[in-house]
Amino acid sequence: MDAAGKKKPDKGVTPQSTDFSAWYNEVVLRAELADRGPVKGTMVIRPYGYRIWELLQAELDARIKATGHQNAYFPLLIPENHLRREAEHVEGFSPELAVVTIGGGKKLDEPLVVRPTSESIIGEMFSRWISSHRDLPLLLNQWANVVRWELRPRLFLRTTEFLWQEGHTAHTSEDDAMGETMVALRFYEDVARNVAAMPVIPGEKTPGERFAGAARTFTIEAMMRDSRALQAGTSHYMGQNFAKAFDIRYTSDAGAVEYCHTTSWGMSTRMIGGIIMTHGDDKGLVLPPKLAPYQAVVVPIGRADSLEASVREGDALVSRMEAGGIRAHLDRRSVSPGFKFNDWEMRGVPLRLELGPRDLAAGLVTVANRLTGDKDQVPLESVESAVRNLLAEIQDEMLAAATQFQDDRTSSVSDWTTFAARVSSGFALALHCGERACEEQIKVATTATARCVPLSAPAEDGQCVRCGNPAAYGRRVLFGRAY
Amino acid sequence: MDAAGKKKPDKGVTPQSTDFSAWYNEVVLRAELADRGPVKGTMVIRPYGYRIWELLQAELDARIKATGHQNAYFPLLIPENHLRREAEHVEGFSPELAVVTIGGGKKLDEPLVVRPTSESIIGEMFSRWISSHRDLPLLLNQWANVVRWELRPRLFLRTTEFLWQEGHTAHTSEDDAMGETMVALRFYEDVARNVAAMPVIPGEKTPGERFAGAARTFTIEAMMRDSRALQAGTSHYMGQNFAKAFDIRYTSDAGAVEYCHTTSWGMSTRMIGGIIMTHGDDKGLVLPPKLAPYQAVVVPIGRADSLEASVREGDALVSRMEAGGIRAHLDRRSVSPGFKFNDWEMRGVPLRLELGPRDLAAGLVTVANRLTGDKDQVPLESVESAVRNLLAEIQDEMLAAATQFQDDRTSSVSDWTTFAARVSSGFALALHCGERACEEQIKVATTATARCVPLSAPAEDGQCVRCGNPAAYGRRVLFGRAY
Repeated sequence: MDAAGKKKPDKGVTPQSTDFSAWYNEVVLRAELADRGPVKGTMVIRPYGYRIWELLQAELDARIKATGHQNAYFPLLIPENHLRREAEHVEGFSPELAVVTIGGGKKLDEPLVVRPTSESIIGEMFSRWISSHRDLPLLLNQWANVVRWELRPRLFLRTTEFLWQEGHTAHTSEDDAMGETMVALRFYEDVARNVAAMPVIPGEKTPGERFAGAARTFTIEAMMRDSRALQAGTSHYMGQNFAKAFDIRYTSDAGAVEYCHTTSWGMSTRMIGGIIMTHGDDKGLVLPPKLAPYQAVVVPIGRADSLEASVREGDALVSRMEAGGIRAHLDRRSVSPGFKFNDWEMRGVPLRLELGPRDLAAGLVTVANRLTGDKDQVPLESVESAVRNLLAEIQDEMLAAATQFQDDRTSSVSDWTTFAARVSSGFALALHCGERACEEQIKVATTATARCVPLSAPAEDGQCVRCGNPAAYGRRVLFGRAY
Repeated sequence: MDAAGKKKPDKGVTPQSTDFSAWYNEVVLRAELADRGPVKGTMVIRPYGYRIWELLQAELDARIKATGHQNAYFPLLIPENHLRREAEHVEGFSPELAVVTIGGGKKLDEPLVVRPTSESIIGEMFSRWISSHRDLPLLLNQWANVVRWELRPRLFLRTTEFLWQEGHTAHTSEDDAMGETMVALRFYEDVARNVAAMPVIPGEKTPGERFAGAARTFTIEAMMRDSRALQAGTSHYMGQNFAKAFDIRYTSDAGAVEYCHTTSWGMSTRMIGGIIMTHGDDKGLVLPPKLAPYQAVVVPIGRADSLEASVREGDALVSRMEAGGIRAHLDRRSVSPGFKFNDWEMRGVPLRLELGPRDLAAGLVTVANRLTGDKDQVPLESVESAVRNLLAEIQDEMLAAATQFQDDRTSSVSDWTTFAARVSSGFALALHCGERACEEQIKVATTATARCVPLSAPAEDGQCVRCGNPAAYGRRVLFGRAY
């Protein structure tokens, strides 16, 4: 290794097993995904983190549009009285609101809420736009920022402001609206699994965990590497609650005036936190190739003339890979290769291509795999196909590994002792009576909560794992400690 | 025409010549580009308007990224004291601020400003991130919403909240930063001209029209069809003003600690207002093909079986056009063809394809051109190439027509009487003394303002058109009444 190579690399991060929370914060900061904003609880999404978000957005947006939804944009500022029209909704969100009381240098007659979610302003517009059954279904989506005051903020996971998409739709019937609720849940599942390589369990929230104002709430729940659950996307059937609160009515084919059935569904920058905690290891981030800002980084190695030759060849290599649709990058920084290796490992780049004088002389490039740690020599002329194949393999292996991890830590349990042990390091599938007070007792005893009633769980009756009363839901409930 | 065709179409809009402002508002609402939000001055961007924004974003974002900038995201909420650090900046924006004083149910110790622009929060982050000349240039961009209290709002043109991109960069030298300022100005000019078919005059703002806190402000100015000017994008060289206010310093190669030179630049949803007012006519919107959500709409015509055949053929036609990269749409609504013709004319769709039983029998489709009003019959098998050629022609013709319109209403003037007449219905290029008081007199007398000192104006000396004092700037200044 050349002189520059001896430059001491940055020290690593705290191991996951020592302190998972410290590991997470260090990775977010060291990989330059995000930084803390000046206002407590706010976050700056740095270019590397924002690029992951852009790639995720593109995948999600394509699915949203392919299912007939159109994007629109609704105002940030909502009159406080709008929020109050749906009683449960305002009760749920009131403690988290940021309120504008001064505008244009004057105290406002009516305070304005910075949107925590947009049901109330979109409900108002829907009531203006919808008059006939011909106007339905109305299928809209918005990409936006929202603000919810956070007392215990964590980068990406719980921030006072976050970015998301929120779908809002109106329908003539419960059937139609429930179908829509499932369409959204299914593309969240698809994006999580097939883009973020994050296996998720789709299911319905228990009544105590429903969205404020919803009739039914569905969720995808993922398992992080500390075995905690992360709610990664939710889809709500509102029934006619918001239609009645905002007077969203239509004239049916038969001439009757009816209330609409509405839905809303959202996925946010929280997903980035989920990706970090699903795949990361003690060297830092591990990114699924489909969401990696750079899928392959070329590190030129050598001194003086030989470095120049490496840079020249690396440049050509990056151009060829880019032309082939691979997101590639040549690292030209004046720091040692060792520093670069550590840096790109920290940033979770799937493949690192090392190009040194000996490689070049032999017409080879060394390809290092972030996931497996393997290093292989690949002929220069076939790098593109080799990289493409490796990226596909890594994507598949990441999903398989995360699925294995989750499966190993999820089990059906029927007695309380086993339940308590299981949720201390994973997910328990258990029968439950459906009483909120009993859910609360479980939480107090174990810190675990009912994550969802998985849609895939087979029909089953029996007794509640905690209180022994008859089980509700007709199937098992997924319990876990959650973010 | 069939029975359905007799359904009375909606009445048209107020002619531009009768009341341009009424025409504008009616087109925005009738074409369903936007609607007013519940809070005064706020706007809902409806799907048709938002799609135009998405297409414009994609074009602009590609240029931003191709010139080495990366997207990031900074918080919406800024501590009030941050804004105060740059004296001119806070003075300029204070009257327009929305202020959050309550968060999470409590009165905040320090009020938070909803960002009117992000220099002050980005300055804070730059000072944390930049330490060495190796960190420079730092080239960031953000797509975001901003809030500026508007007392006289107009949809798209002046709204309390609007969407934009704001570029923020830091450099080691004035030369570098000025180069960057020009790079941004040039891609705004490129997008306006070559995407929105909007001819613009790039130039520098006079000192009185500079951005609050900037050393130099550059702009692109367009002429609307009522001959008023619209500022359509701005690019600012900040000098070291913000670097000093936010302590953005770097260590140079030689080891000295220096302040950075910074820039910022923005283009917003205001551009959509500009597109409407540059190209629209008394039938409604006319969209440049590159920004049209639908470039070609197929209207099937016929009764019963023949309508079914038209729909079937139209569906196949739309699929073929879409496969060829044309944004096409089949209008299946149960309303009359006449209603649809008017509707798509109002919405400014470049090409309408009419498909009736007689067309089908002859293997033809009737293509109606929104810009020229021409109708042509085109063989069904060559529709895609015909449409593609027509779209390219329309794009070019729209730029040519708007350029002609602007050229016809722009002239160099040297005496006050001619100046006053010229700015009443166009742009005047005139020498000016550079004194703010004199600019103010011109505004009081004519309502016209100095739009910019065009970069293309040849060197010229002489006397101020208003006061007769020696001219400043060494070239003519563009004057016009502005939005």
